Amino acid sequence: MVATPNKPQVEKTPLSPEELRKIHAYWSACNYLAVGMIYLQDNPLLKEPLKEEHIKNRLLGHWGSSPGLSFIYIHINRLIKKYDLNTIYIAGPGHGAPGVLGPVYLEGTYSEIYPDKSEDEEGMKAFFKQFSFPGGIGSHCTPETPGSIHEGGELGYSLSHAYGSVFDNPDLISVAVVGDGESETGPLATAWHSNKFLNPIRDGAVLPILHLNGYKIANPTILARVSHEELECLFKGYGYKPYFVEGSDPEQMHQKMAATLETVISEIKAIQKEARDTGVAKRPMWPMIVLHSPKGWTGPTEVDGKKTEDFWRSHQVPLSGMHNNTEHLKLLEEWLKSYKPEELFDDTGKLIPELKDLAPTGKRRMSANPNSNGGLLRKDLRLPNFRDYAVEVDQPGAVEAGNTHRLGVFLRDVMANNMNIFRVFGPDETASNRLTPIYEASKKVWMGEIIDADADGTEITPDGRVMEMLSEHTLQGWLEGYLLTGRHGFFHTYEAFAHVVDSMFNQHAKWLDICKHEVPWRVPIPSLNILLSSTVWRQDHNGFSHQDPGYVDVVTNKSPDVVRVYFPPDANCLLSVTDHCLKSKNYVNVIVADKQKHLQYLSMEEAVKHCTKGIGIWEWASNDDCGKEPDEPDVIMASCGDIPTRESLAATAILREEFPHLKVRFINVVDLFKLQPESEHPHGLSDKDFDTLFTTNKPIMFNFHGYPWLIHKLTYRRTNHHNLHVRGYKEKGNINTPLELAINNQIDRFNLVIDVIERVDKLGSAAAYVQQRMKNAIIEHKAYAYEHGLDKPEISNWKWPL
Amino acid sequence: MVATPNKPQVEKTPLSPEELRKIHAYWSACNYLAVGMIYLQDNPLLKEPLKEEHIKNRLLGHWGSSPGLSFIYIHINRLIKKYDLNTIYIAGPGHGAPGVLGPVYLEGTYSEIYPDKSEDEEGMKAFFKQFSFPGGIGSHCTPETPGSIHEGGELGYSLSHAYGSVFDNPDLISVAVVGDGESETGPLATAWHSNKFLNPIRDGAVLPILHLNGYKIANPTILARVSHEELECLFKGYGYKPYFVEGSDPEQMHQKMAATLETVISEIKAIQKEARDTGVAKRPMWPMIVLHSPKGWTGPTEVDGKKTEDFWRSHQVPLSGMHNNTEHLKLLEEWLKSYKPEELFDDTGKLIPELKDLAPTGKRRMSANPNSNGGLLRKDLRLPNFRDYAVEVDQPGAVEAGNTHRLGVFLRDVMANNMNIFRVFGPDETASNRLTPIYEASKKVWMGEIIDADADGTEITPDGRVMEMLSEHTLQGWLEGYLLTGRHGFFHTYEAFAHVVDSMFNQHAKWLDICKHEVPWRVPIPSLNILLSSTVWRQDHNGFSHQDPGYVDVVTNKSPDVVRVYFPPDANCLLSVTDHCLKSKNYVNVIVADKQKHLQYLSMEEAVKHCTKGIGIWEWASNDDCGKEPDEPDVIMASCGDIPTRESLAATAILREEFPHLKVRFINVVDLFKLQPESEHPHGLSDKDFDTLFTTNKPIMFNFHGYPWLIHKLTYRRTNHHNLHVRGYKEKGNINTPLELAINNQIDRFNLVIDVIERVDKLGSAAAYVQQRMKNAIIEHKAYAYEHGLDKPEISNWKWPL
Repeated sequence: MVATPNKPQVEKTPLSPEELRKIHAYWSACNYLAVGMIYLQDNPLLKEPLKEEHIKNRLLGHWGSSPGLSFIYIHINRLIKKYDLNTIYIAGPGHGAPGVLGPVYLEGTYSEIYPDKSEDEEGMKAFFKQFSFPGGIGSHCTPETPGSIHEGGELGYSLSHAYGSVFDNPDLISVAVVGDGESETGPLATAWHSNKFLNPIRDGAVLPILHLNGYKIANPTILARVSHEELECLFKGYGYKPYFVEGSDPEQMHQKMAATLETVISEIKAIQKEARDTGVAKRPMWPMIVLHSPKGWTGPTEVDGKKTEDFWRSHQVPLSGMHNNTEHLKLLEEWLKSYKPEELFDDTGKLIPELKDLAPTGKRRMSANPNSNGGLLRKDLRLPNFRDYAVEVDQPGAVEAGNTHRLGVFLRDVMANNMNIFRVFGPDETASNRLTPIYEASKKVWMGEIIDADADGTEITPDGRVMEMLSEHTLQGWLEGYLLTGRHGFFHTYEAFAHVVDSMFNQHAKWLDICKHEVPWRVPIPSLNILLSSTVWRQDHNGFSHQDPGYVDVVTNKSPDVVRVYFPPDANCLLSVTDHCLKSKNYVNVIVADKQKHLQYLSMEEAVKHCTKGIGIWEWASNDDCGKEPDEPDVIMASCGDIPTRESLAATAILREEFPHLKVRFINVVDLFKLQPESEHPHGLSDKDFDTLFTTNKPIMFNFHGYPWLIHKLTYRRTNHHNLHVRGYKEKGNINTPLELAINNQIDRFNLVIDVIERVDKLGSAAAYVQQRMKNAIIEHKAYAYEHGLDKPEISNWKWPL
Repeated sequence: MVATPNKPQVEKTPLSPEELRKIHAYWSACNYLAVGMIYLQDNPLLKEPLKEEHIKNRLLGHWGSSPGLSFIYIHINRLIKKYDLNTIYIAGPGHGAPGVLGPVYLEGTYSEIYPDKSEDEEGMKAFFKQFSFPGGIGSHCTPETPGSIHEGGELGYSLSHAYGSVFDNPDLISVAVVGDGESETGPLATAWHSNKFLNPIRDGAVLPILHLNGYKIANPTILARVSHEELECLFKGYGYKPYFVEGSDPEQMHQKMAATLETVISEIKAIQKEARDTGVAKRPMWPMIVLHSPKGWTGPTEVDGKKTEDFWRSHQVPLSGMHNNTEHLKLLEEWLKSYKPEELFDDTGKLIPELKDLAPTGKRRMSANPNSNGGLLRKDLRLPNFRDYAVEVDQPGAVEAGNTHRLGVFLRDVMANNMNIFRVFGPDETASNRLTPIYEASKKVWMGEIIDADADGTEITPDGRVMEMLSEHTLQGWLEGYLLTGRHGFFHTYEAFAHVVDSMFNQHAKWLDICKHEVPWRVPIPSLNILLSSTVWRQDHNGFSHQDPGYVDVVTNKSPDVVRVYFPPDANCLLSVTDHCLKSKNYVNVIVADKQKHLQYLSMEEAVKHCTKGIGIWEWASNDDCGKEPDEPDVIMASCGDIPTRESLAATAILREEFPHLKVRFINVVDLFKLQPESEHPHGLSDKDFDTLFTTNKPIMFNFHGYPWLIHKLTYRRTNHHNLHVRGYKEKGNINTPLELAINNQIDRFNLVIDVIERVDKLGSAAAYVQQRMKNAIIEHKAYAYEHGLDKPEISNWKWPL
């Protein structure tokens, strides 16, 4: 931490009376629009007395944080105009969308994008009616909202999104309004530490504004009910310099806010100038603001004798039951008229010119800033040819290599070629996941203290572009913010703990789905690429708590238009798949690959072919006709995932040796969604192709990386589904050797052979004998593991027979 | 916040030279055991020179935080003995289990529970070998660890578990060691705020000890690389009074730790005394400790010329490659001998008496404290008769009632009857989920400031037992801590955002699974009961981001021995199911029920019968022979979930009116796992019973609350699976009216009728006409919703025909 550079003196009341009058009027217009959105379906300018039929039948929306959101928005606007700032607005309490939609409409962007919501009476009426209305828009800052990269429906990610947006974006200032309710969430509570990863030379700045309006749905917020001293300490402890703007009198609050914003913007600029002039990247105490203002500010003070303004009752719709309640109707009319719409809008419904002038224009409008429609700024990655990183494979299953290590070499050069538009994210596990070569191109960013000892192997520097923090939430939030502003990234994490961010995945997938289908003006952004490593099958010392392959179950619940799941069996397939994912747009790509050494099966040429098809017969492991004459094999051994593939192959080797007349077809699945019918997923195989591969009547032994029933969920409509026998992880684990864990869950070679013997008739008299041998082998191997703590060398060093 | 009562003066060096020598020796014994666990499979007392064959083949475990963990443990022991404290130990960095297992073994508990790990050379050898070894125990504080209620495999929950353990446990002090890596997680970062919910009169105390040892796997920790001032501010900001114990010299550190612990324990006692004497519950600044000590303390300073002690290289196994490396072997021997085992253990391998005396005895041992085996303390809830809360139902589908509201009345009396052993948890949504009646028995606990306005409806008080904070992580952590110490609870949350705590559910389910199958000495604890409300089908103004019924998909991946999922269709079923869940042990029970008003179908008597079976034919809705003669119906309408049930019934009504000769059987599923084969889940129906209900060949239209493929995942083995047609949520949503959302996902009455027409042959000439009418109805209803923002009254007010 270094001292903040001296700030210039800022006036206490920077607004002239004229400016003050105007900015307040502009705010009144915002508030008028916010109330209008929640209540009105007609009579938008109140040209006639308010009647029941002007009121929507269902009153939906959140008034509480709306006035504060627009208050901040327009004060930022003032600074954008004054200093020509490049700024986007992130509304943590995104359910206060009326407070954002209002200023977005007033600065003209809304009408440009949605011409029927024009800047006139008719347009305003349509703008009001559509809000939280069937066929219209949601009540959060959804993808339909110009300028939004953060819906704020689920709370907790505003700050990490904001930081993600400014990394490698030196000119950008992201204003992150953090709700005081949102502040209670875990993800938000730790995201404040993002300042330890922001380099003022090459990154932009985040201006966090804690919107302390005191209440959630039905409760006070924690931060509103601790002492001022505690609150101040908390933010100093997080490494910020907090400024307080507190009160409720609009005139005073406008002056305070304007003065404080002048101060913090000049501080931000001074910090950046010093760092950029000196070339020395140190961590300053970045400024942040606590805006302490009433919930439902300027709304009804009381309703039916109950405190409403500055209380939780303002959270959603403070006045309801409008129908059949003339008193409430009158109160609403008074409330709307308190903003004097006739002084704000001309007769046609357009904002009067002197107010219109207050907003920035063109791309400086936060609602039209290209950073908020990141696809506009997206550049293709300059990818090295992944084929150059191939593991040489002369014969299948003969050599071992570290799949993720190989990937690390590729990612090193992706990083080197794309220094300002690509970052790698992982929770303290880049080394653990064997991606260490990346550090040759870029180390880990670290703005905390660096000590001498770090020089030897810690790989941290303020200039790094590998992001490591022990918070999956913050990492994914950063990455999403980075992608949503048009840059590229790669997230790798422990498979079991990807579940920590299930809900973040859900939200991002939903965002992409809506963008794709409903928001044509949003230009596609780079995909969110996730590598799940340290997988369920290799938890030799972490044990049961670290065994959970169910993240892909969550993923497969989302729209098939935005999700992709890959299980590359070896290094060359992993390279091919990753290259494909890095080029793609608007997907969440999940790649599952273990970090340990694994047998290599396919040459790069074969791998590319295999991954392009996504599923295929491995002829070298099969002894049937390999699909040239359908229904030829006696049994199909299918696998999906690196470790299950090895066990399936080992089982196939045993079967072919013990039963030379048995015709075995070996199928490997890389692209999980190939299994689904084409009607369900764009990658799905046609039934004809599926039947050609899997036959319509032969037993299939499917060895799967994850929970076995996921395969049934994907294939239940297939012709030969009743012959599909799936093995996978069944929650049978503890501290195990690799083979022991496989045995406990029956994905091991021995159990697979037993499975085949139980399901294939024509094996003859040897079957019972082989079955017994398999059972003995299981017992022997478990005993060996219990004795030596290791698998037998013949298992550990097993190779595909030549 | 109130000032902390004056603390008594504590000496700076409270340990006499003799006491110092002994406590250091005891710590050496702990460290010796920790190293032994990681490395040795033989020669446990080093009676002969260390050889390769004494070393385990695989070296697994975490040395880094172990010495710090045992350092804290034994200093707490000193205070337990001195003041007869009732204390449990929660190791956030639970992967440092050797630092906990050591003292647990030394105080004798381990040998009492596991007699083969006796307090002698043979036992020590077994104790060493089993650690992180196949057939042995994991390297975290797993359920097998006496005294543990927190595995610490996944990081982030130590503090919320600790707080949960002390609620309504006035005598207990839970020492929560928080790792500095763990501190970076979101759940941990917000859990510090738990102090705003702890009432010093009726609750015990948590003593958080931040174990600042500087490093994670391969990185420094954030908190270790900020200024002392920031760190101090952070904890003051969280509302604590931080004490720093910093250094590396053992002698000085023992004195500092002893002195600081004396201080904080006396402060805790003073706070409690003042609150309990005056009867005034105020929030003090509770003390906490920052223990800043080297990672891998007392381990090798350097290995192969690389800094190791006080560096990230100490995280796991600082010395490895022992085989074929005599230098490392020698280094290990020196390291082990540096603890002078010959002075700590007698010839038989037993800790010498003067050290043995340092530990508490009996139940005062943290490893034997009954709070850490909560089933021992569990009392049955005094449950009111849930039948007394019945909604009167004279005829099915005729009246509406709020299901969760009714539940709220029942829970009110559960609360009133069980004031000290039952709490309700929810993120700011008790009122939103219509459980408001609970407040009549107990309001929400709130130790923050309370203002005058709160008196009117905020329902907060220091005496409350309803826990509301906007952090699902903290709530679930508290609840788990409460349950693990033998008390009961009920967690209700937004369905979509239950995904926020997917990973916590996974960990708790795994804990229960292991307890059930592997740890017979753990007495069963009350189940974790979760109500998912504000469900996918009623997100009228939150829209798409709040629509996700996939939490149950995650739940169904866990062991069938510990998970249960219920979809009660009406209020009486919800009451019956909840009563059942509150009585159960060692499960995670998930109940899905919407908060809005719903039609009521079953009288209480019928509901109890129906829920007991878990699945059944509703004869009043059927016109077949209802199973008396199998295979009689032409079509089976099945439903699972409140809203799908209503739509299925409405479709059935249409079908029966339009096609009077069509024989319809109506089946409702309450207990989801009834669908699975009995071989897969203990609740599963036998195939015979399933076939009797669903026939073996008739079309089934299954209307499901969640993602439709979950039903296929559960039923793919059933005889009639190929005739099973499932409707459910397919990610087709936005701002919708209830019917519109149902239509978009095809779970609505009209689409269900169309489904039947498409799948049943014998409908005659009317079929095409009815089908067209259904299609028209869909268009009309959507148009009405777009116009009025509401469903047509005939839909909203629909009742089952009489």
